[in-house]
Amino acid sequence: MEEIGYFTEENSVDTVNARMGAGVNPRLAQVMASLVRHLHSFARDVELTQQEWEYAIGFLTRTGQICSAERQEFILLSDTLGLSMLVDAINNRRPDGATENTVFGPFHVEGAPVRQMGDLICFDGKGESCLFQGRVLDLQGKPIEGARIDVWSDNADGYYDVQQPDIQPKWNNRGVFITGADGCYSFVGIKPVSYPIPDDGPVGEMLAHLGRHPYRPAHMHYMIRAEGFQKLVTHTFVGGDDYLVSDAVFGVKKSLVAPFEKAESGKTLWRSDFDFVLARPTETK
Amino acid sequence: MEEIGYFTEENSVDTVNARMGAGVNPRLAQVMASLVRHLHSFARDVELTQQEWEYAIGFLTRTGQICSAERQEFILLSDTLGLSMLVDAINNRRPDGATENTVFGPFHVEGAPVRQMGDLICFDGKGESCLFQGRVLDLQGKPIEGARIDVWSDNADGYYDVQQPDIQPKWNNRGVFITGADGCYSFVGIKPVSYPIPDDGPVGEMLAHLGRHPYRPAHMHYMIRAEGFQKLVTHTFVGGDDYLVSDAVFGVKKSLVAPFEKAESGKTLWRSDFDFVLARPTETK
Repeated sequence: MEEIGYFTEENSVDTVNARMGAGVNPRLAQVMASLVRHLHSFARDVELTQQEWEYAIGFLTRTGQICSAERQEFILLSDTLGLSMLVDAINNRRPDGATENTVFGPFHVEGAPVRQMGDLICFDGKGESCLFQGRVLDLQGKPIEGARIDVWSDNADGYYDVQQPDIQPKWNNRGVFITGADGCYSFVGIKPVSYPIPDDGPVGEMLAHLGRHPYRPAHMHYMIRAEGFQKLVTHTFVGGDDYLVSDAVFGVKKSLVAPFEKAESGKTLWRSDFDFVLARPTETK
Repeated sequence: MEEIGYFTEENSVDTVNARMGAGVNPRLAQVMASLVRHLHSFARDVELTQQEWEYAIGFLTRTGQICSAERQEFILLSDTLGLSMLVDAINNRRPDGATENTVFGPFHVEGAPVRQMGDLICFDGKGESCLFQGRVLDLQGKPIEGARIDVWSDNADGYYDVQQPDIQPKWNNRGVFITGADGCYSFVGIKPVSYPIPDDGPVGEMLAHLGRHPYRPAHMHYMIRAEGFQKLVTHTFVGGDDYLVSDAVFGVKKSLVAPFEKAESGKTLWRSDFDFVLARPTETK
């Protein structure tokens, strides 16, 4: 038997995890022990070479160093490895029939103006107008009154207002709507367009090596909060988009693909109908 | 059956890995597919929360941002999670009887002066003198002639010369020795002392939360290269050191703990005898 504390290739996981002190937070101990186990399993499975390890150290270092107040490359890495979506899914399990979550993304801004139902949210005059409408319901099909619907999308050039503060009007393609007793919502924006995630850094390098494109399919962001219900963070995706099954960040759940149809009447070119169903905190999967 | 490309909690690994393009380097595809599988398994096993994920993103970002020309915090992170030692072990499997590898560490400098057997390598007048001696042998017990032995250690204050360029003499506690036909080596240094790894950054924060100290047990570094043999990168550890079974970077293999005994004769206070056994490239485990 090996003496405890001395390293061998075989005992590496136990040697590392046995090193934790007695008073460690139990949850931290659980997370770190699992992290070490999976990290070592990975290195064993692929028999990671010294050169590959060195490349990985350099890659992670560059990923950290490109981060700034405006850029979070580690979130992008997590997104493009599907980890962000998995963590979102684990933390937002809901019964069948409730609208599914998807990733929050980096472009939400708290404090957008509260508007009246039917109001316009696009102020740069670009893009193809679209009427978004539907209802906010509970799992029993009853309308939810007082639901606060926060919406945001890119403009017709594929940029959010915060990415172009000198070009786009403030709060362009953003707004907050509060439902009445009928649970209905409606607003006029544009049919969103697909756009690439930032791909001029380490994550873009990774995507290129993996033969993957950096595009996200066109989508409208929603965050819906109502007293007595789980917060819903989601998108609706533009049905028919080229990138629906190849979203660079794996954000597309099939139930979130929405119809975008040519409007037969009204003032907009397109319309997209979508009902959101919120679950109560006790309604879990 | 789910349609391919749409994300679900259950299909996350397959969805991500199916996204790789056709022409991807097969080894890269293998490594990344395994990485995604283990990363997702980790998140599932611990049911990683959104808050924990955010902490991890911040931790990795800070780890990258503290890196500089003088500091490599991601290597330190790999070291303190036991990953560096595991990768070293996987890449340096040797038959029983051959001296084991351990981590290279960040303090080697190529180009140290070649000295004569028995020469002094400590030039700052600090510490307790120690005679290091032994032989370089092949697995059959025959001396290896022309083995190039590169040695380095900290000084009595626990710092390598490169950490204190304005304080320590150049090449302090470093030297290169080349064996003759008898395979013997000998040099006079100091009995090395234990020292902490840099613990004022994210890795130190992690160690503190895990109830772990940042110390490495005292050791002398060796890199031994001989024509026709595998390169050996290792340390000898000072027998009796307080941190032998709690090395912050898990570098201690039991076979590398060397005797450090009071010298009965000669000019030094201590002596440490250790034979190194090199394996040929064909001699693997």
